[in-house]
Amino acid sequence: MALNKKPYKGTRDFFPADKRVQDYIFNKMRSSAEAFAFEGYEGPMLEEVALYKAKSGEELINEQIYSFEDRGNRFVAIRPEMTPTVARMVAQVHREIPKPIKWYSIPNLMRYEKPQRGRLREHWQFNCDIFGEVGRSSEIEILQLITHLFNSFGANSEHFEILINDREIVNIVFNDLMKIDEETSYKLYKIVDKAKKVKPEGLEKMISELNLSSEAEAIFKKYLSLQNFEELFSFLEEKGYGEKSNGFKELFQITSEIGLKDYLVYDPTIVRGLDYYTGIVFEVFDKNPENRRALCGGGAYANLLQIFNENPVPGVGFGLGDVTLTDFLITHKLMPDLSKNEVDLYLTFQSDRAVAKNFELANKVREMGFKSLNSLETIKFKKVFSNADKFGARFVSILGDKELDEGFFQVKNLATKESFDIKFSELDKLRELLNA
Amino acid sequence: MALNKKPYKGTRDFFPADKRVQDYIFNKMRSSAEAFAFEGYEGPMLEEVALYKAKSGEELINEQIYSFEDRGNRFVAIRPEMTPTVARMVAQVHREIPKPIKWYSIPNLMRYEKPQRGRLREHWQFNCDIFGEVGRSSEIEILQLITHLFNSFGANSEHFEILINDREIVNIVFNDLMKIDEETSYKLYKIVDKAKKVKPEGLEKMISELNLSSEAEAIFKKYLSLQNFEELFSFLEEKGYGEKSNGFKELFQITSEIGLKDYLVYDPTIVRGLDYYTGIVFEVFDKNPENRRALCGGGAYANLLQIFNENPVPGVGFGLGDVTLTDFLITHKLMPDLSKNEVDLYLTFQSDRAVAKNFELANKVREMGFKSLNSLETIKFKKVFSNADKFGARFVSILGDKELDEGFFQVKNLATKESFDIKFSELDKLRELLNA
Repeated sequence: MALNKKPYKGTRDFFPADKRVQDYIFNKMRSSAEAFAFEGYEGPMLEEVALYKAKSGEELINEQIYSFEDRGNRFVAIRPEMTPTVARMVAQVHREIPKPIKWYSIPNLMRYEKPQRGRLREHWQFNCDIFGEVGRSSEIEILQLITHLFNSFGANSEHFEILINDREIVNIVFNDLMKIDEETSYKLYKIVDKAKKVKPEGLEKMISELNLSSEAEAIFKKYLSLQNFEELFSFLEEKGYGEKSNGFKELFQITSEIGLKDYLVYDPTIVRGLDYYTGIVFEVFDKNPENRRALCGGGAYANLLQIFNENPVPGVGFGLGDVTLTDFLITHKLMPDLSKNEVDLYLTFQSDRAVAKNFELANKVREMGFKSLNSLETIKFKKVFSNADKFGARFVSILGDKELDEGFFQVKNLATKESFDIKFSELDKLRELLNA
Repeated sequence: MALNKKPYKGTRDFFPADKRVQDYIFNKMRSSAEAFAFEGYEGPMLEEVALYKAKSGEELINEQIYSFEDRGNRFVAIRPEMTPTVARMVAQVHREIPKPIKWYSIPNLMRYEKPQRGRLREHWQFNCDIFGEVGRSSEIEILQLITHLFNSFGANSEHFEILINDREIVNIVFNDLMKIDEETSYKLYKIVDKAKKVKPEGLEKMISELNLSSEAEAIFKKYLSLQNFEELFSFLEEKGYGEKSNGFKELFQITSEIGLKDYLVYDPTIVRGLDYYTGIVFEVFDKNPENRRALCGGGAYANLLQIFNENPVPGVGFGLGDVTLTDFLITHKLMPDLSKNEVDLYLTFQSDRAVAKNFELANKVREMGFKSLNSLETIKFKKVFSNADKFGARFVSILGDKELDEGFFQVKNLATKESFDIKFSELDKLRELLNA
């Protein structure tokens, strides 16, 4: 029986045109991170399951990770996310290296998902984190970096927005204003997470099942109705918690001053579940109403290193997956046409006697910094140009017996149709042609 | 109990300095492949085990792969090599796309190895393949590419050599000259593979256990003693098989003409085991006598697509692992110093009032194409320069209350110690400074 030619469920084959798209995206990610002086890192594809157990909820461990026992009876998993790995790595070195620590990575990750649009089992994720105590500034820089990255793809505030909240404020609302216990708070987080995904009746039902006091319920509903930063700040002011929200107010002011105002939208329903966040939490959303989905999520945390018995190192970071980002760029027509390879010179020859010379010329052209495609076999003259087009060549060269004997080759510019005879001893002329 | 901070056995954490080394190596690989007009591809981290079973020996399946059953009862494995994946991908598209198909990839792979110098459980491997019928030329181009890559690292014929053989010639020796049966041939391949790793007595013993005819044994020993192309060709000429070795002779002649003569060494013990090769087989070796190891291996094959019931598509390719290559570059002092990050401008401020301005300036500098590091918090003047050094900055800027009020900032060149006042309205002057 013939083998299946398709990739494993929920994973992708990246043929060259797909790989050029991936490279385009990854290069923008790297350039943005490096423009902000983030340094790249990488970790293992496998980690011990204990690491994920310590950091994440049981749901992830039980249902979503690819875990198994290795041949040495270690219980291991393919990395479903990068945060535990980066925390483990920072735990090793944070005492010795200068802070803030600004690191990025673009690992391949696997989760046991039911494949659907925007969600696959294997994806790549751009991860950026700033570790070390620098107050609100590191949160602002993370937001600035995300905006920089999206701008570098040609996306602006017509295309995306950053929905943002602050876990400190959520805590003020739940603990100080509503005065609810921890168990109810836990349930409220889950409800808030779902608030925009369910119908009003469904939300109403979930709230009523909590049996909150009427005051607490009113506060909660008022909270959920907040539409923007101004409403949030006056709500807190009214309740006597104006001063406690000064940090978030400062973030709002500075981001406005540095040109992020059009991107940032206060959203009370962004809490990022029961995750480890303690400061800001945010999600980047596609503004296309038919494609409303989170492209990126992140936030600030007080101490990811706790599980390693290390002193607290606060941080802020985000993860941005390649699948939803690719959809986003295509939907908004922001993806350049990368369907064809780009080659500077396609070197062909018409006689078997010319094979060695063609190899030699191809390499000389490479040494000048150009991409050269050697035809490797003799190509009939009438096929030369259709081949050149298929392979994405800008120029083509032709080398026959006559040329070989007289020491030159013909070079044609495929755009202008101009043709030039270039002597083997005068390749600098070729350089000028190819550079034009 | 605190969690283990170390990576899983046989895998590596790449801290920024390590990641810069990895990026340096990967960028050279990409540049070389693209200079030869190879196109990038990527495949899934997981494949079904059936794919590896069909392609590889049982040893790999039973002892070396990370395999497990997924939650849908599919028997899957983390990719231990890229060849089965690329064969699967080529099988999907080879009918529609122009040939030759020239593809490269740098996947992360896992094998269940006993970790040791040069051998880890997780590594990255540069894979290049040319698919499609182009005779000896594709073999020659693969050898040219490998040489180009090593040259681009600064390595030359003092540092490495390419040991090469041809499976067609091995077949002539075993089948036509020695006239042995398939089972003995199978054993001979294993012996040849080990010939240079065992002592002469050990080799002698293995050969005698085969009970070859004395003629066959003499031919085999003569074969193993061949030192170079010339000896090989006269040996075959003598035995009446001169013409049958014309293809390999042609490869030797053309590679000599195009400057590869100093790199290529004929070696009868290179056969690449029982693998699927049918044409040339080769291994790149470190010439340092204390570090003799294969850096790269590959060869030509008649039909990788057989397992998919596809028509034959011949090809030639190689795999080059990052672990041994890194050792090679370090041993030969060919690795540049990448211990520090490189930052164009470290932007610091002395007053909380300047925080927004510093964010704004940092971004403007990024828009000019420079890497800028925002200090994020106020930095005491005396710490500015030691920080700048730690973070690898070329220039540093200082912004205090006075500067803020008067609309400029100070920029210092850390190499020349020169200092400049740059007005916020004249950032083009900063561009000139940073470009210098």
